Amino acid sequence: MVRLLPKEVKFFEMFEQMSSNLVLGASEITELLREFKDTADHVKRIKEIEHAGDDITHAVFVKLNSTFITPFDREDIHLLASSLDDVLDFINAAADRIMLYKITAAPAAAYEIAKIIVKQAEALGRAVKNLEKLKDVLPHCVEVNRLENEADRVCREAIGRLFDTEKDPIALIKIKELLEVLETATDKAEDAANVLETVVLKSA
Amino acid sequence: MVRLLPKEVKFFEMFEQMSSNLVLGASEITELLREFKDTADHVKRIKEIEHAGDDITHAVFVKLNSTFITPFDREDIHLLASSLDDVLDFINAAADRIMLYKITAAPAAAYEIAKIIVKQAEALGRAVKNLEKLKDVLPHCVEVNRLENEADRVCREAIGRLFDTEKDPIALIKIKELLEVLETATDKAEDAANVLETVVLKSA
Amino acid sequence: MVRLLPKEVKFFEMFEQMSSNLVLGASEITELLREFKDTADHVKRIKEIEHAGDDITHAVFVKLNSTFITPFDREDIHLLASSLDDVLDFINAAADRIMLYKITAAPAAAYEIAKIIVKQAEALGRAVKNLEKLKDVLPHCVEVNRLENEADRVCREAIGRLFDTEKDPIALIKIKELLEVLETATDKAEDAANVLETVVLKSA
Repeated sequence: MVRLLPKEVKFFEMFEQMSSNLVLGASEITELLREFKDTADHVKRIKEIEHAGDDITHAVFVKLNSTFITPFDREDIHLLASSLDDVLDFINAAADRIMLYKITAAPAAAYEIAKIIVKQAEALGRAVKNLEKLKDVLPHCVEVNRLENEADRVCREAIGRLFDTEKDPIALIKIKELLEVLETATDKAEDAANVLETVVLKSA
Repeated sequence: MVRLLPKEVKFFEMFEQMSSNLVLGASEITELLREFKDTADHVKRIKEIEHAGDDITHAVFVKLNSTFITPFDREDIHLLASSLDDVLDFINAAADRIMLYKITAAPAAAYEIAKIIVKQAEALGRAVKNLEKLKDVLPHCVEVNRLENEADRVCREAIGRLFDTEKDPIALIKIKELLEVLETATDKAEDAANVLETVVLKSA
Repeated sequence: MVRLLPKEVKFFEMFEQMSSNLVLGASEITELLREFKDTADHVKRIKEIEHAGDDITHAVFVKLNSTFITPFDREDIHLLASSLDDVLDFINAAADRIMLYKITAAPAAAYEIAKIIVKQAEALGRAVKNLEKLKDVLPHCVEVNRLENEADRVCREAIGRLFDTEKDPIALIKIKELLEVLETATDKAEDAANVLETVVLKSA
């Protein structure tokens, strides 16, 4: 059924779907971290969004394996899909930690990093939307990288404070891991931006 | 000396050797975790099995670099060998943690996950055995993925319980890491299954 | 401006720059860990060295994307640059942990591992210098791998002792992480050596 559509467009559409889905997931965990209300509902929705993401990622891989001519390098299509999928995996991992460790409050930094992930997802969405025309992609990639640096700084300062103030080692282990998992999601978004940058540079 | 053999068969044989060796390693750590008896002996055997695995992996890489025509894509041969090797590395890492942290008991979940790794190794062995004919590979890959999900659930529930019951933070750090390292071994088995799936899909 | 130079030489020169820069970074963290004096100054210099490394890495990627014929396989150039960059990233991550966790003393093992990273960086430098002629590369790769094994042993013994002697869980978390981050830097150096080995084997 895919065969009738121009193959080039389809990959781009799939990446747009992945980005939109990523915005949903990032928004959901931001909402969760904002006030820790209805935690189980948010976690359930994040899991559903992650499953939807897995389905699109899998569809990209299947299509890649059955497509002879691809709109850009095969390995870059694979890497872009994998890294977009990874962002959502780490959002889901953060949600999991909250349930598993019964976390009912977190430093404001956790919420700040989640908001940064939303901004990265939106910037990735703009970059992916422009990818086919190869115009106005790079500025959004630069923005994703800038946001990663910001998340990194927020995370480190928060962990530094945690070591100063949290005297319960078990509570410290829980919150440190939550912050690190969220920060890793921003690293994965940077990986996706780097693939997009590579695609643009190769085509220059 | 390799030159006289048909090259196509040889890669498949090597992967069968890797799978058989992996079953050995997984069985050994399962035995260790079952009752924590003769720990040093089990750890020593696991290390020997891991070294044997390294030798086969290295032989695959050397052969890959000296072979012009390969039975399936070079990068997939590389990835398959690496991911099979990774499973054994994490089994060995778990054994190491037991010695290093002087762990003398662990939640039943550790034993459960080890048994799951054995089942994954056996399923990978069946998939690899059928790889040359490209028949009856996918169902075993699906089984490896299903087992990874099961290990993931077992690990998370165990860590959740650990945070509820283990009040000694240092003991918690030790057991949490042991469980996570075992669970990572099941992730690596899933990576290997995904490569096998890719090989089959590409050839379709 | 790059076009007038022989392309083959330029990549090799860049890798030599990366290796020299890596020796600088490794020496700086060794000095820091030797006596924990002027910590902030050392950390600042490590950050500068890491930024310089990022610039060279980025230049390699840009050149790779704009070069049609490369002196060795594109993916190996990419992997070599990435893994050399990773070593420095983990040196920087160790320096960060020292500041962030306000670490003012560490087991001698931390200093020992840092000295091993210096030796690995020097061996990588020798391997890279000989890469163009493809002569006398492998022995230095073997040395990098041997050093990784040594660092691994030093790290594990130190963590074993830490669990025996450090009764403050929060102090244990800090030092364990510092040792692990340093040890990961030696793993990344081994990755770089493995890429170099692959390049030599492929050309045989």
